[in-house]
Amino acid sequence: MSLARPLLASTASAVALLAACAVSGSAVADEGMWTFDNFPSAAVKAKYGVTIDQAWLDRVQGATARLSVGCSSSIVSGGGLVLTNHHCASDCAQDLSTADRDYLKAGFYAATRTEERQCPGLQADILISIADVTGQIGAATAGRGGGGYVKARDSAIAGIEKADCVGKESTQTCQVVTLYQGGQYKLYTYRKYSDVRLVFAPEFDTAFFGGDPDNFNFPRYDLDIAFLRLYENGHPVATPDHLRWNPAPPSDGEPTFIVGNPGSTNRLFTVDQLETLRDVVLPQALLRYSEQRGRLIEFGERGPEQKRIADRELFGIENSFKAFWGEFQALSDPGFLEAKAAAQSTLRAKVAADPALAAKTGDAWGEIARAEVDHAALNAAYSLIEGRPAQGSQLYVYARELVRGAVERTKPNAERLSQFTDSRLPLMQKQLLDSKPVYPALERLQLEFWLSKIREYLGADAAQTKAFLGPDSPENLGAALAASTLGDPALRKTLWDGGLPAILASTDPLIRFVLATDPTARAVRRDYEAKVTGPIDHAAARIAAARFAVYGTSVYPDATFTPRVSYGHVAGWTFRGRRVAPFTTFAGLWARATGADPFALAPRWEAAKGRLNDTTIFDYTTDNDIVGGNSGSPVIDAKAEVIGAAFDGNIHSLGGAFAFDDALNRSVAVSTAAATEALHTVYGAQSLLHELMTP
Amino acid sequence: MSLARPLLASTASAVALLAACAVSGSAVADEGMWTFDNFPSAAVKAKYGVTIDQAWLDRVQGATARLSVGCSSSIVSGGGLVLTNHHCASDCAQDLSTADRDYLKAGFYAATRTEERQCPGLQADILISIADVTGQIGAATAGRGGGGYVKARDSAIAGIEKADCVGKESTQTCQVVTLYQGGQYKLYTYRKYSDVRLVFAPEFDTAFFGGDPDNFNFPRYDLDIAFLRLYENGHPVATPDHLRWNPAPPSDGEPTFIVGNPGSTNRLFTVDQLETLRDVVLPQALLRYSEQRGRLIEFGERGPEQKRIADRELFGIENSFKAFWGEFQALSDPGFLEAKAAAQSTLRAKVAADPALAAKTGDAWGEIARAEVDHAALNAAYSLIEGRPAQGSQLYVYARELVRGAVERTKPNAERLSQFTDSRLPLMQKQLLDSKPVYPALERLQLEFWLSKIREYLGADAAQTKAFLGPDSPENLGAALAASTLGDPALRKTLWDGGLPAILASTDPLIRFVLATDPTARAVRRDYEAKVTGPIDHAAARIAAARFAVYGTSVYPDATFTPRVSYGHVAGWTFRGRRVAPFTTFAGLWARATGADPFALAPRWEAAKGRLNDTTIFDYTTDNDIVGGNSGSPVIDAKAEVIGAAFDGNIHSLGGAFAFDDALNRSVAVSTAAATEALHTVYGAQSLLHELMTP
Repeated sequence: MSLARPLLASTASAVALLAACAVSGSAVADEGMWTFDNFPSAAVKAKYGVTIDQAWLDRVQGATARLSVGCSSSIVSGGGLVLTNHHCASDCAQDLSTADRDYLKAGFYAATRTEERQCPGLQADILISIADVTGQIGAATAGRGGGGYVKARDSAIAGIEKADCVGKESTQTCQVVTLYQGGQYKLYTYRKYSDVRLVFAPEFDTAFFGGDPDNFNFPRYDLDIAFLRLYENGHPVATPDHLRWNPAPPSDGEPTFIVGNPGSTNRLFTVDQLETLRDVVLPQALLRYSEQRGRLIEFGERGPEQKRIADRELFGIENSFKAFWGEFQALSDPGFLEAKAAAQSTLRAKVAADPALAAKTGDAWGEIARAEVDHAALNAAYSLIEGRPAQGSQLYVYARELVRGAVERTKPNAERLSQFTDSRLPLMQKQLLDSKPVYPALERLQLEFWLSKIREYLGADAAQTKAFLGPDSPENLGAALAASTLGDPALRKTLWDGGLPAILASTDPLIRFVLATDPTARAVRRDYEAKVTGPIDHAAARIAAARFAVYGTSVYPDATFTPRVSYGHVAGWTFRGRRVAPFTTFAGLWARATGADPFALAPRWEAAKGRLNDTTIFDYTTDNDIVGGNSGSPVIDAKAEVIGAAFDGNIHSLGGAFAFDDALNRSVAVSTAAATEALHTVYGAQSLLHELMTP
Repeated sequence: MSLARPLLASTASAVALLAACAVSGSAVADEGMWTFDNFPSAAVKAKYGVTIDQAWLDRVQGATARLSVGCSSSIVSGGGLVLTNHHCASDCAQDLSTADRDYLKAGFYAATRTEERQCPGLQADILISIADVTGQIGAATAGRGGGGYVKARDSAIAGIEKADCVGKESTQTCQVVTLYQGGQYKLYTYRKYSDVRLVFAPEFDTAFFGGDPDNFNFPRYDLDIAFLRLYENGHPVATPDHLRWNPAPPSDGEPTFIVGNPGSTNRLFTVDQLETLRDVVLPQALLRYSEQRGRLIEFGERGPEQKRIADRELFGIENSFKAFWGEFQALSDPGFLEAKAAAQSTLRAKVAADPALAAKTGDAWGEIARAEVDHAALNAAYSLIEGRPAQGSQLYVYARELVRGAVERTKPNAERLSQFTDSRLPLMQKQLLDSKPVYPALERLQLEFWLSKIREYLGADAAQTKAFLGPDSPENLGAALAASTLGDPALRKTLWDGGLPAILASTDPLIRFVLATDPTARAVRRDYEAKVTGPIDHAAARIAAARFAVYGTSVYPDATFTPRVSYGHVAGWTFRGRRVAPFTTFAGLWARATGADPFALAPRWEAAKGRLNDTTIFDYTTDNDIVGGNSGSPVIDAKAEVIGAAFDGNIHSLGGAFAFDDALNRSVAVSTAAATEALHTVYGAQSLLHELMTP
């Protein structure tokens, strides 16, 4: 499940925090997450003898979709059928479940269209065009610095996005993407589908067999797939140009392409930026995840219903924890940072050797180093109060969007917080207003936890702590705020439609709380943008330009949760003398099943044991360069046929946030061969299978 | 509460893990935790004009006691009355409490001797003599390396300790102390008291007002004191040579001496050792504490009784967490490690310049660097399986001591694990057999947590994980083991007295579990001693000898939880332009009390508000150099009179594990002035007060 990025995607600022856009020094081996308008077809031809022409790229671009839960997917039938990971559809399955009808436990299968059920808050986007808007952004930001730079840039982005989608808001999404650390800005236009329904999901125990212990590891035995369907005007969407489902097993060494939306990488952060991650950002995040995890686990010990509702949160937290822990370990390896420092020195020397370039670049590295001092000091306040407040509380998300949405919508488009610009409002509004369950006991836990961390990290005497806690304790205040009735979608709609007057008149405790604390949160944001985001983005854009000047443009940008193509081949690896084969089979699943969670088979699988082919390839690894956000990406072959769904990376892939090591970095996929056999023999999903096998 | 070290002191190996004995490069300012046989009287005379002669030192040595809970204390009346911190007596208060009678909540006061209650497992030791045994250890270890070095040294220590105490086991404790990283070995002989009773403890809310948020901070408003009494043969011990209680308030700049048992510092670790702490040991410990903390907090949310039993554990975990977090931050400061590296380079250059010394020292730094690679790799297995297994489970401690004790007692003294040598058995046996409450629900939590971390850190497929978990889940196995009946002291006595046959015949699930897993744990220990402890201790002793050769011996050893004297004066500090005054008053307490936990006043204090003198000095800071283990240490003046009890350090003191900064590092104490007034006016403890005021 490692490849989803819901926790990173949950707020725009979190992405801004951890992501940066950078160019790679050189694309050796099978490295790179390439944009559709800059794919290295010649390199692929030279290495694999495979021709990837524009027609191939266009076809694949049109048949892959980004999912708003932080995932990727592909269209695999003419009737709008979508293949993704189970863990990309598990929020949907959980939202459709109740204490008595648990689709995560039992799985879900709609044998007919009428049984398919809409996923709350879910949207799918298919990229239809890319246009360069670098010049427009450059003109808008010329001469600006600090917080002014951020404001000017974001205003220009809001204007471009609005202009591109005007009149087409119901079917299009328009997004300006910052590539190469601001070296390029591209306008991405997507066909959007905001009615996405659940078709099939296996049991959680089948999709995530091995659980957290096996996550980011291989061998694996997970059927981490799910099927969704795109609807429009109440009918399935016709998708004649879909990818073909190929049920043949993969073969060792076979060329593979993984197409999806890698979330964020920091491969060309400066050494100072990486040190702040290692010393401050990652340790703080890891420690908070650990405590939250402990609270949720113990909450789940109270009873089966508590376990059901806690497990959904745990799922994401344990995944993020493990990913960040891997990143911390990569950065703590002294050789790793030394290599980064050496590469940085080389670039700086080349820049210094060219007086004109040196003058244009200025002291960009020094500016970042100085901003990182502020970053380290402000990280706790920013992440807790503005970047990712009350993480895990759905009610808090609702309250903040209602309050801020009411205020921001009174402003001109170009002056709003970026989350509330016209181009971004439709998805936000859908996610706000769709009906989904809210669990007050869980809300109490999350709010109490959050408030206790504000006090712990900022100190009991900090003005910000006093603004949020007043004289109250986190325990009392958390319980009081969890009594909010914003779980009612009708109330949310009333407050949203009523705008600022309705918000100001509301007596809901969370609405009152956000109204009272938002000035503090906005002040934290302004301070952070002025001292951290602004100076760093401004300097990073100049480093990017210098890098283009020195190394040229045949390189890929850092991941930005936008469509990318990676190439590679089916491959195992060798670590410390131990060879790991690229394939697992059903036989391995039976051998690993102990009967105890998370190594217990779902009852259907226990029953099907003798009827499945033990030698069928279940999961497999490739050396494609992917990261979180790629979850659900199709693995496709040279003919653009789907031969798997990527769902994880191996443990070595976690350093992929900072560098790609083609000797060790592996993606993990479930095979279409295993999926086909399971749909047939375990699930009896014959109508779904028929649809998949129809060319 | 920061200065206790119960979590570090809980196993000998934990101390070995984090502690090392080293000399300081130079004792500037008020730095140093000095042994009674090497106190820098001349420096004190020069700086403060105070004469500290042998009579002063002897008197203080004879009137201060180490407490087996990881604390320090002083004798403050002729009738065996002992002053320490509340948080050093809180285990006792909790062990004597029940769901209906909670001495942590209500406080405890025995107005008469007959009401005083024995503290389970508690022992007090007063140092009576110090002898040098460096030559004997040197002879025993000559020519040994790796695990053999550890074994030879520990055998020699066991023999020396036994010989010193033979025939006096009931009244003496004999301990060989490793000073200066093995540069010196000293035999410490103590008069021991194994019947220690609770006399007075304030309410937890009074002793720890401000709770975790205020811990390691100042201004503080804590009455963190408790009184105990030494008993022998059922009667209070006569202690005519006690220290005098001086109820006068401290004055700014007044010379102060803090006498106690600092637990462990690592001031002269090599840079490689510090990097392993920063990158591996501290992060792993912090992450585990965080999750355990989260589990305990949420467990406490189930109800008041769960909160009562969880809070005791939380208390220690939050304290350790905050201390380790401070240490991590100190080590993450790039300037800090750079200074350490510079000092190391200077020493190495001086050694290299002296061919004879260079030959004797060999490649000691390189040997440590290589051993640290193994240390990093083995840390998780060692800490989880052997060093601090099942941390927080009292039942597991019992089971392991019973199983190992049965096996080890069949061996000659010199061949036993050091915990079970004849000199150490009496205290271990007392702690094992004394009656104290065990909480099965809490045990379930701790055991489940521990087993889940073995699987997480070592991996589901590791042989060690399989040895501990088998095919079971941490949840099921943890619950099964928590059903152990070792909470019954009579059963423990039967098993202890019955020796190995009784253990082998036991059907208790935890006894069976430890019997089955102990071979794995012992193998982890052997591996760790051969690759980590042995090579490092061997090399560190040579570095210590080289340091003596270069810098002489007028320096202090790293802390070892043995008696030390520090000197300094009452002093505030200035940080980033902000001046912090050294005193707080009762008026500040009233101002800080919000009514919400942990800023709520105990009812007695609410009631006494108008009757206390608002200007009385409550807590104060000095620049004495102390660390965890010093909790309960008397602050004494030049006349050797008690003017306070040290209970904490400020936030800057946490880097004190690695270096002392006299501009910022401060100890925090409660004044005898405040204690006297509170005993009189809040608690009406007139008989206790009378005893204190009797010369």
